[in-house]
Amino acid sequence: MDWILFLIFLAGCGAAATTGAMFDPGEWYDRLDKPSWTPPKWLFPVAWTFLYLAMAAAAARVAGEIGSGYAMALYATQLAFNTLWTPVFFGLKRMAAGFVVLVCLWLSVAATMWSFWLIDSWAGLLFVPYLVWVTVAGALNFSVWQRNPQASAA
Amino acid sequence: MDWILFLIFLAGCGAAATTGAMFDPGEWYDRLDKPSWTPPKWLFPVAWTFLYLAMAAAAARVAGEIGSGYAMALYATQLAFNTLWTPVFFGLKRMAAGFVVLVCLWLSVAATMWSFWLIDSWAGLLFVPYLVWVTVAGALNFSVWQRNPQASAA
Repeated sequence: MDWILFLIFLAGCGAAATTGAMFDPGEWYDRLDKPSWTPPKWLFPVAWTFLYLAMAAAAARVAGEIGSGYAMALYATQLAFNTLWTPVFFGLKRMAAGFVVLVCLWLSVAATMWSFWLIDSWAGLLFVPYLVWVTVAGALNFSVWQRNPQASAA
Repeated sequence: MDWILFLIFLAGCGAAATTGAMFDPGEWYDRLDKPSWTPPKWLFPVAWTFLYLAMAAAAARVAGEIGSGYAMALYATQLAFNTLWTPVFFGLKRMAAGFVVLVCLWLSVAATMWSFWLIDSWAGLLFVPYLVWVTVAGALNFSVWQRNPQASAA
């Protein structure tokens, strides 16, 4: 793996991860009614650390490979939706809009995974935990939104 | 140009652009003391529409080309910093942190422009207005921060 390439991709993930550090769920989120299968709070930063490392490693394996145009376009797009979700959900407290962003994120992550898989099977596999986590996050966003309609900003 | 590739890149720009639509500058920003060279308010959405189209077109010209690995890594990274700035500045009202994000954005846009230029001169040129605008935005962020220290969140 090209480590400089990995570090550039990791810097982009760092920008996305910054939203998690700056937009604190806070008291508003703590008070929401959540489903029983909500993952424990400590798992979120642990999971995202692993997922961002896996994401950057997968991208570093694919970037510059022959036929990687669509894969890289999809990668950039999923990263932008990833960066967008936290400010919309925790910053604006807009749960419906957050869910729309998560659907876009899920679709772009699935498409990136598939396009990575066609070029490098390890890169595709490195995206599997990410898609699983975004699926859980999407279900959680939807469930919290449905359970707390009055707590969501318009 | 590959139009599907262009549209995927444009979707990523759309995620970044959504921050501009959702995080309204509002009354807080209107009341700030701004330098005389602040661009008129109507110019911001016009400029960003043009810049996102140019950005996606440049990326579509470069993606998949031989030796485009670093260019695509830098592109994804600058897009993530682009998506991050608006929520930090207008959402959290954190002007110092916003300036740090803009410095990271400036560096990644300059590096992307250079790496695009090495592969396709038109793609590099399409990034020139973007770098100019981010330079102005950075100077404006800095100036507004210095002029209104009490209006910035910690």
